[in-house]
Amino acid sequence: MTTTPAVLAIDVGGTSMKGAVVTRDGRPVVVERWPTDPATDTVAAIAGHLRSLAAAARDQHLDVVGAGVVTPGMLDEASGTVVYASNLDWRDVPLRALLAEATGLPVVTGHDVRTAGLAEQLLGAARGVEDFVLVTIGTGVAAALVTDGRPVTGDGGAAGELGHIPMVPGGEACTCGQSGCLEVYASGAGLARRYAALSGVSLPAEDVVARLGRDADADRVWAEAMQVLAQGLVTATLLLDPTTIVLGGGFTAAGDALLEPVRAGLAAGLAWRSAPPVRVAELGSEAGWIGAAALAFRSAGHADALGTWTPHALLGAPIP
Amino acid sequence: MTTTPAVLAIDVGGTSMKGAVVTRDGRPVVVERWPTDPATDTVAAIAGHLRSLAAAARDQHLDVVGAGVVTPGMLDEASGTVVYASNLDWRDVPLRALLAEATGLPVVTGHDVRTAGLAEQLLGAARGVEDFVLVTIGTGVAAALVTDGRPVTGDGGAAGELGHIPMVPGGEACTCGQSGCLEVYASGAGLARRYAALSGVSLPAEDVVARLGRDADADRVWAEAMQVLAQGLVTATLLLDPTTIVLGGGFTAAGDALLEPVRAGLAAGLAWRSAPPVRVAELGSEAGWIGAAALAFRSAGHADALGTWTPHALLGAPIP
Repeated sequence: MTTTPAVLAIDVGGTSMKGAVVTRDGRPVVVERWPTDPATDTVAAIAGHLRSLAAAARDQHLDVVGAGVVTPGMLDEASGTVVYASNLDWRDVPLRALLAEATGLPVVTGHDVRTAGLAEQLLGAARGVEDFVLVTIGTGVAAALVTDGRPVTGDGGAAGELGHIPMVPGGEACTCGQSGCLEVYASGAGLARRYAALSGVSLPAEDVVARLGRDADADRVWAEAMQVLAQGLVTATLLLDPTTIVLGGGFTAAGDALLEPVRAGLAAGLAWRSAPPVRVAELGSEAGWIGAAALAFRSAGHADALGTWTPHALLGAPIP
Repeated sequence: MTTTPAVLAIDVGGTSMKGAVVTRDGRPVVVERWPTDPATDTVAAIAGHLRSLAAAARDQHLDVVGAGVVTPGMLDEASGTVVYASNLDWRDVPLRALLAEATGLPVVTGHDVRTAGLAEQLLGAARGVEDFVLVTIGTGVAAALVTDGRPVTGDGGAAGELGHIPMVPGGEACTCGQSGCLEVYASGAGLARRYAALSGVSLPAEDVVARLGRDADADRVWAEAMQVLAQGLVTATLLLDPTTIVLGGGFTAAGDALLEPVRAGLAAGLAWRSAPPVRVAELGSEAGWIGAAALAFRSAGHADALGTWTPHALLGAPIP
């Protein structure tokens, strides 16, 4: 009887985690979502989820060859230590070693947005592209910078902090302690805060987006967000000269209300050079665990398998 | 009789070119400087200089194994074509092929600032550093971005345009057609222009720098330049997480008047992370041809020789 190799994959977020068992041919046989409870030991919770995924894989007679776990924050990729992750309240957590010990499995760790970039490069909007920037716009903003086929991690694993580049001198205060950062204007949190300040009405960012075209306050904060975002992409383009820019995260629900002003602002903000095309991420919020599974297969010596994966097989399963 | 391998190296600038014959052990046996005459065929002039360097090398019984030529502009590094270089008035010039044909030598081409970055990494202020940003502040501003040991070139060889990132929304006009670019404020041309506008006196940038501390107008435009430069380095740090930032070009003549405000502004502009150290480039205006020589030896299969080079041997010769 032959056994099918599989990996466990978990994308750890500040509010929830998504996990999957993925077979060598790129099929997710189990996909689960769990809340992230800040009151409990998050590392122990991740280890528990890995064990339950491993049990589910064994029930299906799969041969678990490793696990991939991706998190936000500053990661030392060589050691697998999370140096700092504000929304998990982690500082110097040797995540890879702790999870390997707790599960008895080979574990590989990665940065959530850089790993989503890998997934988009393998299977999504950056397929076959060696130089691209993936900007994820959710509550905050982060970017995966890929140059010559390789993700930029930087000295301490802290590269890609596009959300905090200074865009407006003397601008509005950011939660980071600075002012005028990109995500003060062009993020879910920024949009909701600025809409509330202007209109007196507190709404989640997605509801602000839903009012575009029929609410002058929504239109105004959105237009300002688009202007700042486009200028931030001008900066990324001038520094990195990407072939393509990929936008992911909640803002992409706005569709053309996002793409049209961003494309126009990017073209208008560049002088002697053309603007790279701007696309929407294709794997959406599934890119994290898909990339984590890819990291785990690579690390287990199955890198050749990734070429056979398709978005259809990976996304075709019912995703909670 | 054994022959000593040597390469020819030329750093092509908008106003002058510097060339050298460099031996395998990193000694420049000839160093020359020629004006760049925009009225003549610059490619033919470079070819002529390469032939005269080759003749000088043969006079010293050296075995010329190749040539390295570095230029400003957008370079397609794979093909050796200069896509666009404004201050040489070049567009789609197949430089490597033209020079190889004209000289009969293997020729390698590179980008001047990225190649200076390679030289600083081999022998200078970024020795042994895998992640750094070299910012050259002369008439304009350009940067070499090195991540994980490799220079970022981007899709079309246009990466590193730090001089044109938007820093001041609605700011002063730039020669590039945009407004508020970094180099509008923080470059030699910007400093001279802004000093003249404020004081009514036209002076070259180095004379403005020489007046610091005894001329309120000079102090003011310098302080504004430092503020914009520091914010630009905040952006580069947040995106690339460099181990070190290296500053080169004419502004470094200001010494502590440059380093102190830049270091202070960089630290003040970063929130949850520490500021990388800021150093002055060690090879100064010689980094271009030194890097060009390194590229040529690498390309000729002598990469092992570079480890034996010393700044003393390379800079010890009389430099015109």
